[in-house]
Amino acid sequence: MAFYVQKYGGTSVGSTERIKNVAKKVAKFYAQGHQLVVVVSAMSGETNRLIALAHDIQENPDARELDVMVSTGEQVSIALLAMALMTLNVKAKSYTGSQVRILTDSTHTKARILSIDEARIRADLDAGFVVVVAGFQGVDEKGSITTLGRGGSDTTGVALAAALKADECQIYTDVDGIYTTDPRVVAEARRLNTITFEEMLEMASLGSKVLQLRSVEFAGKYKVKLRVLSSFEEGQGTLITFEEDENMEQAVISGIAFNRDEAKITVLGVPDHPGIAYQILGPVADANIDVDMIIQNVGHDGLTDFSFTVHRNEFKNTINILKEKIQPHIGARDVLGGDRIAKVSVVGVGMRSHAGIASKMFRVLAEEGINIQMIATSEIKISVVVDEKYMELAVRVLHKAFDLEQAL
Amino acid sequence: MAFYVQKYGGTSVGSTERIKNVAKKVAKFYAQGHQLVVVVSAMSGETNRLIALAHDIQENPDARELDVMVSTGEQVSIALLAMALMTLNVKAKSYTGSQVRILTDSTHTKARILSIDEARIRADLDAGFVVVVAGFQGVDEKGSITTLGRGGSDTTGVALAAALKADECQIYTDVDGIYTTDPRVVAEARRLNTITFEEMLEMASLGSKVLQLRSVEFAGKYKVKLRVLSSFEEGQGTLITFEEDENMEQAVISGIAFNRDEAKITVLGVPDHPGIAYQILGPVADANIDVDMIIQNVGHDGLTDFSFTVHRNEFKNTINILKEKIQPHIGARDVLGGDRIAKVSVVGVGMRSHAGIASKMFRVLAEEGINIQMIATSEIKISVVVDEKYMELAVRVLHKAFDLEQAL
Repeated sequence: MAFYVQKYGGTSVGSTERIKNVAKKVAKFYAQGHQLVVVVSAMSGETNRLIALAHDIQENPDARELDVMVSTGEQVSIALLAMALMTLNVKAKSYTGSQVRILTDSTHTKARILSIDEARIRADLDAGFVVVVAGFQGVDEKGSITTLGRGGSDTTGVALAAALKADECQIYTDVDGIYTTDPRVVAEARRLNTITFEEMLEMASLGSKVLQLRSVEFAGKYKVKLRVLSSFEEGQGTLITFEEDENMEQAVISGIAFNRDEAKITVLGVPDHPGIAYQILGPVADANIDVDMIIQNVGHDGLTDFSFTVHRNEFKNTINILKEKIQPHIGARDVLGGDRIAKVSVVGVGMRSHAGIASKMFRVLAEEGINIQMIATSEIKISVVVDEKYMELAVRVLHKAFDLEQAL
Repeated sequence: MAFYVQKYGGTSVGSTERIKNVAKKVAKFYAQGHQLVVVVSAMSGETNRLIALAHDIQENPDARELDVMVSTGEQVSIALLAMALMTLNVKAKSYTGSQVRILTDSTHTKARILSIDEARIRADLDAGFVVVVAGFQGVDEKGSITTLGRGGSDTTGVALAAALKADECQIYTDVDGIYTTDPRVVAEARRLNTITFEEMLEMASLGSKVLQLRSVEFAGKYKVKLRVLSSFEEGQGTLITFEEDENMEQAVISGIAFNRDEAKITVLGVPDHPGIAYQILGPVADANIDVDMIIQNVGHDGLTDFSFTVHRNEFKNTINILKEKIQPHIGARDVLGGDRIAKVSVVGVGMRSHAGIASKMFRVLAEEGINIQMIATSEIKISVVVDEKYMELAVRVLHKAFDLEQAL
């Protein structure tokens, strides 16, 4: 008898038929005597429908009101799934984020979870209920509805698993696990049985898109066992582990991640003195823009160039902030940028104990004539920014060069 | 400077275009310096769409979960209207029933309002906001979402007007006021400038359908000035008054109401002793079935017949309850019923001081060969049940016989 938090995404609950299928899956676990909290997203398409309605009314929808609207998507899903469970004679009860009381900060449309009141859910579990919780949403201290931003249902699942001390958080998706890279780009991509938390974190932040970044961070922080599985097929999926097992010694590289959602920005001729990074990135952070790669090279003649990447949607906005608020202020020579770029990364904990990964990566790309625009490294990944048009080629040749199609 | 609670129904907010129009109307009042609380229903069609989804999953949707789903309809409307107001530079903020805290009992799908916490709304009004509140919904003591049943947005409007001591509760609908009868049945039907609360109560309960019964009762109880107006046209609408003014002396009859939503049930050969009405209607009430007309004639030989009407949707259910639980228990001879009936009523406070209304009504119907199946009277109305097929004829001849097409 175990206690699972299961999360089903929008595709898994995309129609009443699919909701009935999810109910059958849940009922099977229930019949085996497991305790279950089920987190669901809005039916696929519903969130976009609601956002489109909002844009029909207001060009930049008010964030507080947008959250009021968009949160209805999951509210419909939880009720439907609870009903579907009842038709299978499973006792079920739904909760919105506000009803659980998933307390968040007040950053509407991208709120962060502060705490979860587990009392009600615990009481319902003890009374034999399957508890169905709306993903993606919470409530702030003033009682206003908040949402966690796209993909936030994963975070809800992990946060509930942490708060309730569940044995495992199972994320059901439309893929059957984490692959060495996207099978649509490399046909030989292979499903991993396990991946370390750190690798997963790099894979998610680099755009592997199976799990949302924040949920993986959360899982790591609270040591929640996280498993990615398919809603539609049987299978064990991929378990995200927190310890490296012996296999890891052999698999130097676990996967190739890529991402074309970013844009690069360079501030040229920046005075090379302490505090300059903060002067540039402070106003960007104040505008709630997330920065990914940050590169500053050794300067000369008292000047240096400062580069970073942001989400492509924030490209123009960031350029404007830099030109208006920062460039005149710090006396930089110019602000340049481009959004036709892609980031390609090799990820693997084995890198720690194996030298030469970076040089192999650069050699393979050079052999294909792919120019590298930016480089950033961490202990377990190496990322390069290349022209967008070379992205798929780069992923394919790297996947092959690191023997990722071979089962261990 | 006045303080209005305005309520806009589903048709008035049926599209983003219409929501923008409502916002313009509200903004005009706001520009005149009035304080405004605006109650909105779900966009027309939305509630039915949600109910259909629920029925796709569960034949008899669980009432608690149905409320979770259905309440999302108004939640979308309030956010859209608040956004639309902001585009007109009107400060606006939305609240769900649960956020206001409209506390109700736990009778899901037809809950009753117990109390309203006016603190938040009051603070927002004082800060210059237009407050947009979701109609039709509340929250019970356990924090579960409840709904007030169809038409409940009117009740929300009146209850808020009462709690906040508004100057007037304005109900915007797709008609421009209360008519002497339905203009689709009688072309000469005339809009009333005023109608007394008691007449309105009879008109509503008899199916005039412009206002929901409970909202009128509420308005009467808390002496809320209620006005019915058109969302689409200018005009003063119809004011529901609590005192009869001098005009009333002349207008003996204010209107002809009718209703084909009912079914009649007769329990034959009931022992004629005290407590029998309770024995019959107690179990019906326990099943949450509302009873409208109740008729018991003088008995003979220790037996009597007992008749009443219920909503047509509850007809079969009521017959079953009577046959299974009541007939054997009290030893009644038989239970009969029919759902092809209509109720036609003449309503008017002038009736109190004018004799002969009933006999005139019966004569007019007899002249048309319309058989009367049941009769019930109150101080200000006379209702008859006739075969459904005679309903429109009955309404037309009565409207003419009582000179209702003539302006006073």
